[in-house]
Amino acid sequence: MKKFVNDPKNFVPEMLEGIARANPDTLRYVPEYNLIMRADAPREDKVSIVQGSGSGHEPAHVMVVGRGMLDGACPGDVFAAPPMDYVYETTKLLASPKGVLLLVNNYTGDRMACDMGREMAESEGVKVQVLTIDDDVAVKDSLYTVGRRGVAGNFFVMKAVGAASEEGADLDELVRIGQKVNSVTRTMGVALTACTPPAKGSPLFELGPDEIEFGVGIHGEPGRERRKLDSADNIVDEMLDAVASDLPYDSGDRVALMVNGLGGTPISELYILFRRAHQRLEERGISVGRSYVNEYCTSLDMAGASLTLVRLDDEIERLLAAPAEAAVRVF
Amino acid sequence: MKKFVNDPKNFVPEMLEGIARANPDTLRYVPEYNLIMRADAPREDKVSIVQGSGSGHEPAHVMVVGRGMLDGACPGDVFAAPPMDYVYETTKLLASPKGVLLLVNNYTGDRMACDMGREMAESEGVKVQVLTIDDDVAVKDSLYTVGRRGVAGNFFVMKAVGAASEEGADLDELVRIGQKVNSVTRTMGVALTACTPPAKGSPLFELGPDEIEFGVGIHGEPGRERRKLDSADNIVDEMLDAVASDLPYDSGDRVALMVNGLGGTPISELYILFRRAHQRLEERGISVGRSYVNEYCTSLDMAGASLTLVRLDDEIERLLAAPAEAAVRVF
Repeated sequence: MKKFVNDPKNFVPEMLEGIARANPDTLRYVPEYNLIMRADAPREDKVSIVQGSGSGHEPAHVMVVGRGMLDGACPGDVFAAPPMDYVYETTKLLASPKGVLLLVNNYTGDRMACDMGREMAESEGVKVQVLTIDDDVAVKDSLYTVGRRGVAGNFFVMKAVGAASEEGADLDELVRIGQKVNSVTRTMGVALTACTPPAKGSPLFELGPDEIEFGVGIHGEPGRERRKLDSADNIVDEMLDAVASDLPYDSGDRVALMVNGLGGTPISELYILFRRAHQRLEERGISVGRSYVNEYCTSLDMAGASLTLVRLDDEIERLLAAPAEAAVRVF
Repeated sequence: MKKFVNDPKNFVPEMLEGIARANPDTLRYVPEYNLIMRADAPREDKVSIVQGSGSGHEPAHVMVVGRGMLDGACPGDVFAAPPMDYVYETTKLLASPKGVLLLVNNYTGDRMACDMGREMAESEGVKVQVLTIDDDVAVKDSLYTVGRRGVAGNFFVMKAVGAASEEGADLDELVRIGQKVNSVTRTMGVALTACTPPAKGSPLFELGPDEIEFGVGIHGEPGRERRKLDSADNIVDEMLDAVASDLPYDSGDRVALMVNGLGGTPISELYILFRRAHQRLEERGISVGRSYVNEYCTSLDMAGASLTLVRLDDEIERLLAAPAEAAVRVF
């Protein structure tokens, strides 16, 4: 294993400490619960937005805590659901009079932790709702899920409810918005290589030198099939067909288009994919209103990418364009 | 080679087309000269800031064209200097009455292209100055350079002169600011793996399964020595010693600290490195005023990282904090 790592047991806490040190004025790290939270949360005038998930998907979700995004993120260890008591304690710490919205990607372990954390917090009088995200069109069920998986498209749910919560939307309204965004968001991913979890020290699965996993999950779960490596354009065409035909996205639609790197693929290649997807959408009469090319939801050091479409309406587009800031940034 | 690529000859133009498609309102792509430029450049009221360089270092430099950063970037092919006539044509296209500042990282080929492009543009009456960046402390000379190499620290030069040019600073003033920032900026990098140029199709050099290249250049040039892989903390300690002792940075100094990913290393690991560097600076009495953890200057898909320090004063800190926007972004 060639990684920048000390004792793999400390991979997550050391990363979280790094995030806090880089953002001393705006973020706070609570080591007892792997919690990264905004220094000004909870605020009386807004619902707190929280995501629980496994680690290894950075910048999701601990690096997207900030104004207009999450109020807190409590990850588990790498690719492991957060412990239910972490979710519970996090929910209590972030309890606002307006309530707490727990976002959860659709994985059985994460949902269980989230639901039980919610029940425990509710029994102490905290107002909580849970919103499940399941944007991955690749497979219906997987090693970790009943139903579709939640992957990179969850960025758009976080962004929209994050923006609306800053404007004072109440908990029911945020659930409506989040469900609406999730309902028009679809994603598909492709792996060129496996990833290596620090505690395992070796690749999570085997891929031959000219094989790719089409429809891979963000924990390296199998997708639709193993294929031979193909040109960037052919890979995009197939990913886009799978995504676009699912909702479906039709001529006349206006969309957000995201090309998300899975961790080991450089941004140069992501723009080559984006170019083709943008061309093809144009040919179909689908206009791209907002563009996203970067790493949003990774799988450690996996080489690969996913493609996400969101069908925009005025409400969603306005919320996506609202100002936001977080640990992940350039300037 | 496992990459998202079509014909490797089109790697750079397809990437550039992707950048333009993702930023239709703000950027323009001029295929004849590999040029990415701001849609509103040249502006009469500001010096145009331009960087020429090889490709393969993205987001440097084509993805940092935008308000408060570069007005244009004209890259060569992967790891190849831009042709001199591209530099010349770019300089003419971006000629403002206030002049053009050409930034160049210190590599022999890039400097030659830049100097000759400048001479040709000057002979047609364009006011041009060239500013060379050489922040890498690893080696004095390399395969590509006489003197020190220019690496990730050039971000700070771009950012500072980009901000000052928006405020109306003239060409001489920008040269003064850029030289000052360069003079207080030092970087050192470490490679865990080699990178694979698309046209070559195989790794650029060999590194054993437990070897690292300490002091690597951004084109895979050899550094100070081959070593055994060590813990993240030990690697940071040695990088930081090399960087901090060079200027040197002393107790009482206030610095910007950058941990830059080289392309294949996930951001989680970068924060583990950042945490240690921040701790160690604190122990030395050096305070971190600004933090940068992301990919700024990569070497294709190389796994590795570099560490940069900039000694801050009020002028530099103000310019680094000024607003900026570019293709590389999250929201």
